[in-house]
Amino acid sequence: MQDQTKIYGIRAIIEAINSNEEIDKVFLQKGVKGDLMQELERLLRTNDITTVYVPVEKLNRLTKNNHQGAVANISPISFYSLDELLEKTSEKEGPSLFLLLDQLSDVRNFGAIIRTAECTGVDGIIIQKKGAASVTSDTVKTSAGAVFKVPIAKVDHLKDAVFYLQASGIQIVAATEKTDNSVYDISFKDSTAIIMGAEDKGISPSILKASDQSAKIPLLGEIGSLNVSVACAVFLYEAVRQRMGT
Amino acid sequence: MQDQTKIYGIRAIIEAINSNEEIDKVFLQKGVKGDLMQELERLLRTNDITTVYVPVEKLNRLTKNNHQGAVANISPISFYSLDELLEKTSEKEGPSLFLLLDQLSDVRNFGAIIRTAECTGVDGIIIQKKGAASVTSDTVKTSAGAVFKVPIAKVDHLKDAVFYLQASGIQIVAATEKTDNSVYDISFKDSTAIIMGAEDKGISPSILKASDQSAKIPLLGEIGSLNVSVACAVFLYEAVRQRMGT
Repeated sequence: MQDQTKIYGIRAIIEAINSNEEIDKVFLQKGVKGDLMQELERLLRTNDITTVYVPVEKLNRLTKNNHQGAVANISPISFYSLDELLEKTSEKEGPSLFLLLDQLSDVRNFGAIIRTAECTGVDGIIIQKKGAASVTSDTVKTSAGAVFKVPIAKVDHLKDAVFYLQASGIQIVAATEKTDNSVYDISFKDSTAIIMGAEDKGISPSILKASDQSAKIPLLGEIGSLNVSVACAVFLYEAVRQRMGT
Repeated sequence: MQDQTKIYGIRAIIEAINSNEEIDKVFLQKGVKGDLMQELERLLRTNDITTVYVPVEKLNRLTKNNHQGAVANISPISFYSLDELLEKTSEKEGPSLFLLLDQLSDVRNFGAIIRTAECTGVDGIIIQKKGAASVTSDTVKTSAGAVFKVPIAKVDHLKDAVFYLQASGIQIVAATEKTDNSVYDISFKDSTAIIMGAEDKGISPSILKASDQSAKIPLLGEIGSLNVSVACAVFLYEAVRQRMGT
């Protein structure tokens, strides 16, 4: 069974996964067993779909329908593969601009970033399947609908995406405090992918190491950190400014 | 009577106003009459304090104490006058940077802007007494504590503040779509005050007219508008970039 945002029932979710429906997250009732449930759990694992075990009361709040111990949230958008994303931009004239989000977890920050990405002509956003913020109704709202306009690719490992982009001739610029370079020292005139890190931990060390350049935003106060969606805007607009030739 | 965030009781609120306590908003019970209540209402009007008439149930939710039909929210910060703000920055070397917020109403956007202002060395934020977003616990949180570090001045009329700043040799730059100038065409090397408008309506026409310059942010997508806190960051960081001499 299915409405606009949810699928309920074990068999319905299995069918949805097998027909490549974009499932964002699945809630399973704690303690429910059975062959069908085992098959669903196996499918969830092999497809890397976030799964949460919850008490039956939580499921009853999610839907009034007969859920049989399983409710899935459907993603409001379709995701691209990295190949599809690069193919989509290959015919574009001029340098391309990508955004990689490393374990960004706040859905509002995610939405705000997608909105700014749309306004700065970003060709695509790349996130990791596991650990990334979901596209929820809050994401859609804070993005001002930009989530339906900017292509988003989901990849298994962000580090592999970094190598793949580099092999495609795209420079990787990491936004991090752990550098002496300022964002204003970087040239964004060639095709570039900018990596923004998680709200708390920043960019993972191994991804930072794989980047071609790293750059920080000057902070003149005492607080010492910007909101990640603001930091992202400063990077993206510096690229816009340089490419406008001003 | 008073706790950290609220004052309750008619007489207590009258005393707080008379001793210049920073009151953010007052809730009065609908239909409550009396001499003391009349005196409070008169004081609220003459001091331009936002007043909301609510059913008694709302007041009972606000406090468990005996509120006598009146509860006031205390502001967590003290505000400056424009004179105090300018005096505070008069000894500073180099050009100053101010931010005027015209009827910005979302407390989270307000908090996000204060955080960016702190990181860009803004000397002060100027808001209007009536119609501006309050400094609530959400503002404090989204500002990451910057609300305690950046001086904020409240003025009766933002337009008078514009004239006052101009008379003090500070150029006024309005952030608006209604111009052909790009933010990258403006020089921020001299002392500048940037005006950001409300989320929905932008900057009031009379304030726009009083500004020395107006500038827009290039928008390369279809959505056609940035979040106001993101737009503010793009303006403030362009000032930082130019003043760094990069």
